[in-house]
Formats: sequence, C-alpha cells, structure tokens
Amino acid sequence: MKSYFPINADRIREDLEALARFNSTPGEGVTRLPFTKEAREACEFLKERFRAAGLETREDAIGNIIGVLPGKDRELPAAAMGSHYDTVYNGGMFDGQAGVISALEIARCLREQGIKLERDFVVIAFNDEEGVRFHRSYLGSYGILGRDQQQAIRDYKDRDGISIREAMMSWDMDPDRISEAVWDWKKVRAFIELHIEQGPVLDSEGLEVGIVQSVVGFRRYMVTVHGRADHSGTTPMDLRSDAVDTASRVIAWMGDFARSLNDGTVATAGYLRVEPCVENIVPSSCEFSAEVRSEHRESLDAFTEGLKKMLRESAELCKTGFEIVEKMDIPPVKLSRELCDRLEESCRSRGFSHKRMHSGAGHDAQEIASACETVMIFAPSRDGRSHCREEWTDFEDIAKAAAAAYDLVTGL
Amino acid sequence: MKSYFPINADRIREDLEALARFNSTPGEGVTRLPFTKEAREACEFLKERFRAAGLETREDAIGNIIGVLPGKDRELPAAAMGSHYDTVYNGGMFDGQAGVISALEIARCLREQGIKLERDFVVIAFNDEEGVRFHRSYLGSYGILGRDQQQAIRDYKDRDGISIREAMMSWDMDPDRISEAVWDWKKVRAFIELHIEQGPVLDSEGLEVGIVQSVVGFRRYMVTVHGRADHSGTTPMDLRSDAVDTASRVIAWMGDFARSLNDGTVATAGYLRVEPCVENIVPSSCEFSAEVRSEHRESLDAFTEGLKKMLRESAELCKTGFEIVEKMDIPPVKLSRELCDRLEESCRSRGFSHKRMHSGAGHDAQEIASACETVMIFAPSRDGRSHCREEWTDFEDIAKAAAAAYDLVTGL
Repeated sequence: MKSYFPINADRIREDLEALARFNSTPGEGVTRLPFTKEAREACEFLKERFRAAGLETREDAIGNIIGVLPGKDRELPAAAMGSHYDTVYNGGMFDGQAGVISALEIARCLREQGIKLERDFVVIAFNDEEGVRFHRSYLGSYGILGRDQQQAIRDYKDRDGISIREAMMSWDMDPDRISEAVWDWKKVRAFIELHIEQGPVLDSEGLEVGIVQSVVGFRRYMVTVHGRADHSGTTPMDLRSDAVDTASRVIAWMGDFARSLNDGTVATAGYLRVEPCVENIVPSSCEFSAEVRSEHRESLDAFTEGLKKMLRESAELCKTGFEIVEKMDIPPVKLSRELCDRLEESCRSRGFSHKRMHSGAGHDAQEIASACETVMIFAPSRDGRSHCREEWTDFEDIAKAAAAAYDLVTGL
Repeated sequence: MKSYFPINADRIREDLEALARFNSTPGEGVTRLPFTKEAREACEFLKERFRAAGLETREDAIGNIIGVLPGKDRELPAAAMGSHYDTVYNGGMFDGQAGVISALEIARCLREQGIKLERDFVVIAFNDEEGVRFHRSYLGSYGILGRDQQQAIRDYKDRDGISIREAMMSWDMDPDRISEAVWDWKKVRAFIELHIEQGPVLDSEGLEVGIVQSVVGFRRYMVTVHGRADHSGTTPMDLRSDAVDTASRVIAWMGDFARSLNDGTVATAGYLRVEPCVENIVPSSCEFSAEVRSEHRESLDAFTEGLKKMLRESAELCKTGFEIVEKMDIPPVKLSRELCDRLEESCRSRGFSHKRMHSGAGHDAQEIASACETVMIFAPSRDGRSHCREEWTDFEDIAKAAAAAYDLVTGL
C-alpha cells in the first residue's frame, strides 16, 4: 500500500481492523454503543496503543481516552486532534475511528522521526458522539467543553430504560465528577478532526482531501397534518380533508426550495407516516419530518418561513389542520480560516487534489469550535455511503488526509 | 316517527335493529362476515321475516336469500330489489342492510294494501358484497349473473387460509352447484338497490333522496419509487435520489388534477409507506396507492396519462426509479335513465328534495346493470360516515327512499 511520508497507511489499516473487532454485530457492520462491553474493550485497546506510542494516557471522567505526546514547552497551548470511538447500529469501521487512529498515527510518526514538537500534541478519542443509544449526541466533547450535562445524563435513557448516569456507573465512573473532564481552553492552540466525508462529494468529483471550512446548521421540524378519514370514492374533493394531499404539496415545495437556492442547502422529509394507510380511505393523519441543512443562516431562515407559509396555504386548500413542532435548531459553525489555509498549503505542496467544503453532518469539532481554533479534514467516502456496513474509505486516502494533518500539527 | 305512506319507518327500524344483533363485535360496530355464525343467524332471521311477509322464500346456491311476492302474471319479467346482508369489520347497521329491509318493507306494504302487482316482486339479500373476508367482492351478485367464479372460490382465502369454497362447504353448500343460482335475465324487468350514500353530498346539501344515475369507474395503481438511502446532511440535492421527493410531486399533482377537472372526479393516495423512514436518512423507497374515481371515462384516461407523465418527470428530476402496477380498472357504469326519471317523478310528487348523482362506491347494482335496467336510490349518510360504527342514516330518511322505490315498483 502506498504511504504518504511519514504516515504509514498499513499501520492505519491494522489499527482500524483491530478496533473493528470490538463489535456486537460481527458480519453485520460495526456496532459499538457507548458504555457497552465492546466500547470498554475498544477503550482498553486504545489505551494500550496510546501507551505503546509513548503517550501519557488516561481515561477522563466522561469516558474519553486521551493520550499526550509532551512538547518541548509544556506551558505552550497544545495541538489536539481526534474523533470518536463509538458507532451507530450496524455502522462502518471508519466513521470516527479513522480520526482517532490517524491522530495516533501522527503521534507515532513524530516519535519515530525523533521530532519533538514545541507544544504538546493531544490525541483524543471521544465517547458517545453518535448519540444513538441515549438519543443524545456529543457526550464526550460536551464533557471537555464543560457544558452542564447533569440534567441530560439523568433524563436521557436507552431503550431498556437505562440512563446515561446509570450507564456511567456500570463503568465504575462517578457521574458527579464529570466536571473533572473539562479542559482549560486557554491551553489549547487548535483542534483538528479528521473524519470520513459521509457524503458523495469528494468521491463523485474524484478529489483526495476535503478541507472543511464550516459545519452546516440544521433545523428539524415534526409536522402533523390532521385530516379526516372518509371513503375515497364517496367523498368529493371539496368535502374531504386529506392529510396526504396537504403534506405532499409541502414536501414537494421543500425539494424545489432547496434546489432553487443552489447554495448547498439540502431539505429532506425522511420520516413520514400516514394513518390509517388504507388505499380506499382518505388519510386522516400525515406526520412527517421537515429537515433543512445549510451553512447559510439566511437559507435556514428562508426555509422556516417558506415551510410555514406552504403549510398554511396547503392546509387551507385541503381543509386540514396542522401542527408544527421544532425539534432541533443548530446554527451553522464557521471553522478556522487560518487552519484551512494551512491545510490547503499542505495539500498543494503534496499534490493532493482537494476542495474547501462544508460538512453536512454534525461532528464533535463543531462543538469544539466554540472553544478554540478548529478545523476538519475529510477523506472520501466511497459512493458517499456511511452509517452502514457498506461504508468504505481507502486506507491510502486516510493516509493522505493524515499526512495533511501531520503537516498542520508540525507547523503550529 | 314520521312515515311515508305506505312505508312504516318504525318497522324498518325494528328490523334493522334486530338484524344488527347478529354481530361478532357488539359495542364496536357491526361485524358480519360471509359464512360466519352471525351471517347464518342473519340469513335465518331474513328467511323468517320474508316468510312472515308472505314471500316464497329460499336460499340460493351461493348464499343469497330470495323472497318472491307473486304477481298476477308470473310470466311477466319481474321487478327485483335488494342489497347485501354482510358488513365490513366494525361497520354500521345500515350499509347494505337498509336496502334489504326496505325491499322487505315494500313487499309487506304491498300485501297489507291488498295490492297484487302485475309482475313478481323479488326481494334479494346478497351474500358477500363487501369482500373483506376473502378480499374479493360481489360473490352473491356474480352468482345470480352467472359469472364464472370457480377459480376465484378456490383461490381467494381469508386470513386463516380458508378458501371461499371451503367456507361454502362449512355451510353445507355444494360449490360445484353454484351455477344453479343464475337468473334468467330475460325474466327480469328491473333491479333496484336502495343504499346509504356513504358520502357527505346529500347530508351537506340538506337533501332527502339521491337518485343514482351512474356508478363511478375507478382505477387504482400501486406506485413504488426507488431512491437511495443516504445521509440527509451530507448528500447534496444533485447527488441524492430521494423517493419521497419524487412521490410528493406526483401526489400533489393528483389532488390538483382532480380539483381542476371539477367534474366529480376524485383522486386519493390513501396508502403510503416510506423506507427506511428515519429523519436524517434520504428515503430509499416510497410506495403509494394512486386511485382515481370518476363517472367519466375521459377523466380516468386523463388521470392515467397524467400520472405516468408526472412520475417520469419527477423521477428524472429526483434521479429515482419507479414501478407502476395497475391493481384495478373498473369502468364507470351508467344506470337506467328511465328508472331515474321515474324516481325523480316520485320524489317530485312526494315533495322529497333530491338530486341526481353518481355513486362513488361500488355496489352489487353496478354489476346487475350489465344484465337488466338498474337504478340505485341513496339515503343520506350523517356526516358522510360509513364503514365505521359512527355510520348513521335516519330511519325516516330510509323510509323516504323506500317510498320512492315503492312508487317505482308499483309503477312498472
């Protein structure tokens, strides 16, 4: 396998394959939910690997695994790099994990090359980024940021009714001491997250590295249209109240709206349920999710306004009622222009084809960006697939992204 | 209760209430599926009532209950009237049953008045019109029409795997002798079906009687749009293949199309399922029913053409594939203009507010119409409800419709 000095692509492959074995669904993708046996094994594996690379290794009070490669001047603000070690149900072996292992590989290379950085280099593997077990994301990154999570760890529960707090205790962690995980952000120069793109842009354009200048904001609404169940044959159009008729007009608008903006904004109605869902009965209810993502706040605002207008108009035309509930409103995040410029310089000098882009998915880095200079680097996802067993990124592509990150880390 | 000479509304109420007791779901609407204990009890009750009214009563080879009031000249083609005695799951006490009891009431009135018609008057209670048990309608009316049903009675099964044929045998009927049920249609002058409207038109317009000049034709398609499951945030609009985006555009068109015709045509997407149905995943599949009903064949044709065009265009825009399968194609049926005119005359002379209208639901009468002069009479459904426990038609309204039918029968 081709490597990109000093990054060793084979070593990345070996570590990712080793990590992938901590998995509750072998043969059906990787499932490693937070605070499970698999997650514990992954943590122990990472700690062992971090130590073997010469890192000062510890597990923090919220379940993040942290390794520090000491710099010449330990008082200088550190460079940190990492991603998460948990996965979704039946996910892939790259999401999150590629960023953790790349950071580890960079630390290993530094040591091998006999390079001692001016500042500490901190490798971090975050706990529970995906949020699929407890329906709440970013536990680990919120932990180092010092966000108040006491309410959340009591309230959010998994499908067996186990709270985050209870899950922590099952790992012999003390939920009342999570504040010990908080970092002193004055002592952090930069945070870098390498991640697979999870989308088709780099792959479809044949590019090697994505330099992520922003993470999209997103808003998600749950809309319920209330119609009336009537016989589909005996109820004239002007005497019926058809929930699907209303919803279809709104959803068709969503796609047209996003396409018309032509600024990268995407809109999706991924969830949609109809009642009673019988061929010859006018639908009495249609519940659907209306999600928009954009790096432009104006586009998010225009979506919200347009969605509500379309709902009012369609409900009036179809004589239905509706409710709209806001489920999420996460603002777009600009990442560090300085760090993007440095990454671009590295890609240019190494001859990696690249583009500046936004991330359409959420990441720990978008939270960290509120505390220090932050940037993300994307490696191409084959065919854009992620969160599934088909997820694939070539190890050489991870090595390229890691090489760019190496240049960034050594140049800080 | 007010009656409409010579029809006795109280007697109609008593009979309908008595019939409603043969019910497998007391307190939760009326459920009387074909070839069940309840249906057997209803048959025995009807035979007893038919005999008490002086009718020559028999059960035919397909489970229809038939009573004949002999006329002066038994060689003259007979006047026949009736409807069905089965119900849907948790249906009402009027659907079908009101037509059977009204025909019985007319026979009773004729005898009471000492009126002997020129021709025989045949009262018929059809078996299995609804088709909910075996997923196939019109068993009884197909039986008297002589349609070949041997294949169907073997193939169509209920949810316990019992075929129509087996159900017949459980009633000690011989499935190989169903051809004995066929009528000699040269000996039938007219068929009349009184039925509840099952829609909101008469009720919303405050009319007393509906004179049904046609039964709509209908076409039903099952459409499956094939997209691709991708992350809703990371997949740009031009690189996604969104099954719901495609479907929504087609369904929105369906409603607009039906409204724009303004000729009574209705279009409904009653069934709709989305996969994987997750908020942050672009839908990979959307299956929906596309149904159109109209008394105008041109409108049905225009729907079919438009539907396929919209599907092609939307699938191209949204980069999806699709399949469309025709599930039903039932042509519209014109009923007898002569009989409609006679009914209108009766309504006028009795002072019943009325209108000529189409039936949006299917009925035994639409099948019988292929064999003899046929007409339907509608009584108003409160709030248009039917096929549910809320189904209601005032007994006085049934009596009015029956009075119009009485005039028609005595005038033939």
